Amino acid sequence: MSPIPNPLPAWLRNYRKDALGADLTAGLIVTVLVIPQSLAYALLAGLPPQVGLYVSIFPVLAYALLGSSMVQAVGPVAITALMTYAALTPLAVPASPEYLVLAATLALISGLMLLTCGALRLGFLAQLLSRPVISGFISGSAILIVISQIKHLLGLSPQGTSNWQVLAELLRQLPHSHWPTLAIGVPAFLMLVFVRAGLGRILPSLGMGAGKAAAMVRLMPLLVVLLATLAVVAFDLDHERGVAVVGAVTEGLPPFRFFIPAYDIVQVLIVPAAVLALIGMVQGLSMAQALAIKRRERVDANAELLGLGAANVVAAFYGGMPVGGGLSRSAVNVAAGAQTPLASIVSAVAMIVVVAGAAHCFARLPLAVLAATIVIAAGSMIDLDGLRRAWAYDRADGLAWLGTAGGVLFLGLEIGIGLGVLLSMGTLLLRASSPHIALIGRIPGSEHFRNVERHHVDTIPGVLFVRIDESLFFGNLGAVELRLDQALALLPETRHVVLVMSAVNRLDATAVEVLGELNRDLVERGSRLHLAEVKGPVQDRLKRSDFWVALSGEVFLSANDAFERLGHCS
Amino acid sequence: MSPIPNPLPAWLRNYRKDALGADLTAGLIVTVLVIPQSLAYALLAGLPPQVGLYVSIFPVLAYALLGSSMVQAVGPVAITALMTYAALTPLAVPASPEYLVLAATLALISGLMLLTCGALRLGFLAQLLSRPVISGFISGSAILIVISQIKHLLGLSPQGTSNWQVLAELLRQLPHSHWPTLAIGVPAFLMLVFVRAGLGRILPSLGMGAGKAAAMVRLMPLLVVLLATLAVVAFDLDHERGVAVVGAVTEGLPPFRFFIPAYDIVQVLIVPAAVLALIGMVQGLSMAQALAIKRRERVDANAELLGLGAANVVAAFYGGMPVGGGLSRSAVNVAAGAQTPLASIVSAVAMIVVVAGAAHCFARLPLAVLAATIVIAAGSMIDLDGLRRAWAYDRADGLAWLGTAGGVLFLGLEIGIGLGVLLSMGTLLLRASSPHIALIGRIPGSEHFRNVERHHVDTIPGVLFVRIDESLFFGNLGAVELRLDQALALLPETRHVVLVMSAVNRLDATAVEVLGELNRDLVERGSRLHLAEVKGPVQDRLKRSDFWVALSGEVFLSANDAFERLGHCS
Repeated sequence: MSPIPNPLPAWLRNYRKDALGADLTAGLIVTVLVIPQSLAYALLAGLPPQVGLYVSIFPVLAYALLGSSMVQAVGPVAITALMTYAALTPLAVPASPEYLVLAATLALISGLMLLTCGALRLGFLAQLLSRPVISGFISGSAILIVISQIKHLLGLSPQGTSNWQVLAELLRQLPHSHWPTLAIGVPAFLMLVFVRAGLGRILPSLGMGAGKAAAMVRLMPLLVVLLATLAVVAFDLDHERGVAVVGAVTEGLPPFRFFIPAYDIVQVLIVPAAVLALIGMVQGLSMAQALAIKRRERVDANAELLGLGAANVVAAFYGGMPVGGGLSRSAVNVAAGAQTPLASIVSAVAMIVVVAGAAHCFARLPLAVLAATIVIAAGSMIDLDGLRRAWAYDRADGLAWLGTAGGVLFLGLEIGIGLGVLLSMGTLLLRASSPHIALIGRIPGSEHFRNVERHHVDTIPGVLFVRIDESLFFGNLGAVELRLDQALALLPETRHVVLVMSAVNRLDATAVEVLGELNRDLVERGSRLHLAEVKGPVQDRLKRSDFWVALSGEVFLSANDAFERLGHCS
Repeated sequence: MSPIPNPLPAWLRNYRKDALGADLTAGLIVTVLVIPQSLAYALLAGLPPQVGLYVSIFPVLAYALLGSSMVQAVGPVAITALMTYAALTPLAVPASPEYLVLAATLALISGLMLLTCGALRLGFLAQLLSRPVISGFISGSAILIVISQIKHLLGLSPQGTSNWQVLAELLRQLPHSHWPTLAIGVPAFLMLVFVRAGLGRILPSLGMGAGKAAAMVRLMPLLVVLLATLAVVAFDLDHERGVAVVGAVTEGLPPFRFFIPAYDIVQVLIVPAAVLALIGMVQGLSMAQALAIKRRERVDANAELLGLGAANVVAAFYGGMPVGGGLSRSAVNVAAGAQTPLASIVSAVAMIVVVAGAAHCFARLPLAVLAATIVIAAGSMIDLDGLRRAWAYDRADGLAWLGTAGGVLFLGLEIGIGLGVLLSMGTLLLRASSPHIALIGRIPGSEHFRNVERHHVDTIPGVLFVRIDESLFFGNLGAVELRLDQALALLPETRHVVLVMSAVNRLDATAVEVLGELNRDLVERGSRLHLAEVKGPVQDRLKRSDFWVALSGEVFLSANDAFERLGHCS
């Protein structure tokens, strides 16, 4: 009998008491710091602000118990919020009851997809996306996020059906910007820029320790938000001057709402949910991995997917908004000294207290300041350096970046990522479609074979030795056929063709068919096809094919064997 | 000044007079033999019967002048007809004026796509599809064609919105089959089965020459059609017994109808047209190639695309139905002794005579017999042997076949082919995602390096030699990272990691980013990353990357160099 598995996660079973203090402190700090962004991302997703707080509770607990990263913090994140908004606004009016149902369903479906991928150990699917595609997608999305926030910074409310119409309308309305909003938003924005760009370097030069300086930088945004809110309250800017604020934040614990999604809703949301799951997978995994490397820990990709999936399923029932592994959340968590997921549990419990008793404090938080924090966060996600590096290294990778970002900006998030995948795959296929093939001969007095074009080698008249330097698959057979045709046209007296397969690790079914045809053609012109140096696994597989039976020539162990034997025959 | 290119195709400039007789005869035979199938495929596409004859004229001429195959015959083909029907029936009522416009537009767009691909030399795009996917697609389509014809064989007219509803309705109505139709269709069907299955073997055994026997087999279907038509005329089966016949075939030359397609129609047809072009490309190219191999000729893939594209553009204006390289047409052409495209030109001219003066002869051709010929032709396209071979050789290829065929049957032609492409690509990625990586050491007393697990080799404590046996790209870096992590976990004292890149032909941008991260991680743990045996083109590209500058170790010419140098240091 196998031992009953302990239901507690490994980190909890082996919990070292000396980490307790650090985890407690970190958890409390994270709670306070992530409140503004939780509200902001809920609004960005088109949902009531409290939803952002709700999904910072139970989904966080689910991830803490199932995920594999020690310090990754899940919650509402910018990209996920944007994707939710983009997927749902064509279907319902933001913040309407139908919209809330759709958002919860989206979280549920993508969560179930992530759970399935984790259970089926499909973590490798995250590799479908190359770095330039991921970078292009995130950059394009970040630009969309910035565009979506400018109106809050300016105190305008442009209308339009597409992002670009909204932007054009915004530019037209620019002279009519709302001055009180600008007066509060612009200083906040500039201060945040300064904090991010300069403060981290200035503080240590003033004699502050690096750790303290980093904590200070992390705390500043909260200070900005606090000051701005105090300004609104002090001068009654929201009522007197019309400065837009968060508005009523419903107080009380998130309700548990179980539901089984309607079939027609599932049908509409299945593609956006899949893209959400894929992006969540890629982002969550890459961040968990980056954090683990820094801490010399290991991430189990499939446990990670289970954690993210469970967090989203719980988010569907307790709050109703998709969640992900948050870059800034996790950074805050690490900077605050978190050692284990206990920090996240502490943060979730503290968030319960906030939601139950202090949510009303955020009602008069000015939207312009939230927008400023989002713009700063999104701005840092625009990875132009990634574009530069990809472009400098390989135009094809640069084009994949541009194609993905351009697709996201002009055609939509899903088409953008689809375009990126197609471009990556296309490039891969294109590069692999011209395999290296060499006609070889034997170096005199040795058993070594080399390219006839580059070395002085012996050949046997009427015998062609061809070395294929790559695995054969449907995409590169055309080039192989062409090369062989050319060689045979130049050497019409060829009676034996020996394929030296020392570098062929795999042959797909198309390759075997093509080899079969080659064999038939050679027989028709009175020649024979031989194989040499076929690797064990390739040979095992070939034996299951009709080609193996029909092969007109022999299978030699080595090119030298073939050389000796065919040399005697001819 | 460059010489003025001769506008005539090479085959015409170098025409040998002794081929004239053969081409004339073959052209006339092809004309007569392809009339029934031309009518049948027009009806299958939901178009009036004469359209099939129309597109056997000018498109054929266009292909003869631009295509590269000597003996391929273009015209209406089964798959293209089915795809036309599938794409257009959701948009208009078959044979209605709108439907005719849509069909012509479909031919125009896919023709322009083929011309573009030919002009841009994108013939390699045909390699996007693996053999199992092509075989699965054609098989699934052929099953759909068979299903679509059963009603004509039984003399029933079932209604339904999907293929499966129609089939179910057909089974329900089976007992009410129309006896006179059965009486003419079933014998025709059985006779055609016998012709295909047995006649080719029986005739030679009765002393007939192989060539004559083959010609006889080719002629039999025409005889069956003739007999059936005579039966209809003799017994007035269409008027007296209600046997369905082709009906009025408009006589006279095809009108030239130039049009510029409306934008909204283009938008709706762009995806079906692209699939049509892709399948046309794949089928046309593979057939042209197969025919050329038999005749020891060469096919220029891009000229072939120009020929197919021009044929479709012409078909759009002179007839209005997409055309393709026809399997049975080409087989008839070859069997009849065609030597050059002159045979096709003769056939086109002869078809003008038929269309102008003899089209009325086909009005009383019974649909049941046409259906029998289509079912026989489609049946031979169902490539279950291809499934068997793919499945036996590699489950993944077998699944790609099943996925494509199943997609075609249950989800539609476009989704089927899309599924096939995804499955092929996915398999490719999955197979390539586990590259072979070996820790290597030096064979004592030599400069050769081998796998430490399989050979007795020298190693240097603290130095790890890792040979990567495959090009690195976004899809296989996860496995490389994992393998390195494992090795470093087992050998925590490692101070130098040497990547031996003798088998690495390419690194994509993602690979360079990951190498950069590996370098950073190694530096963080106090180790260095070295490279050895980097190929020239790889090194040229790496020099453009940030990684090259940041590399903590050295670039050695050979693994042995690295071994000598690092052995002295440690």
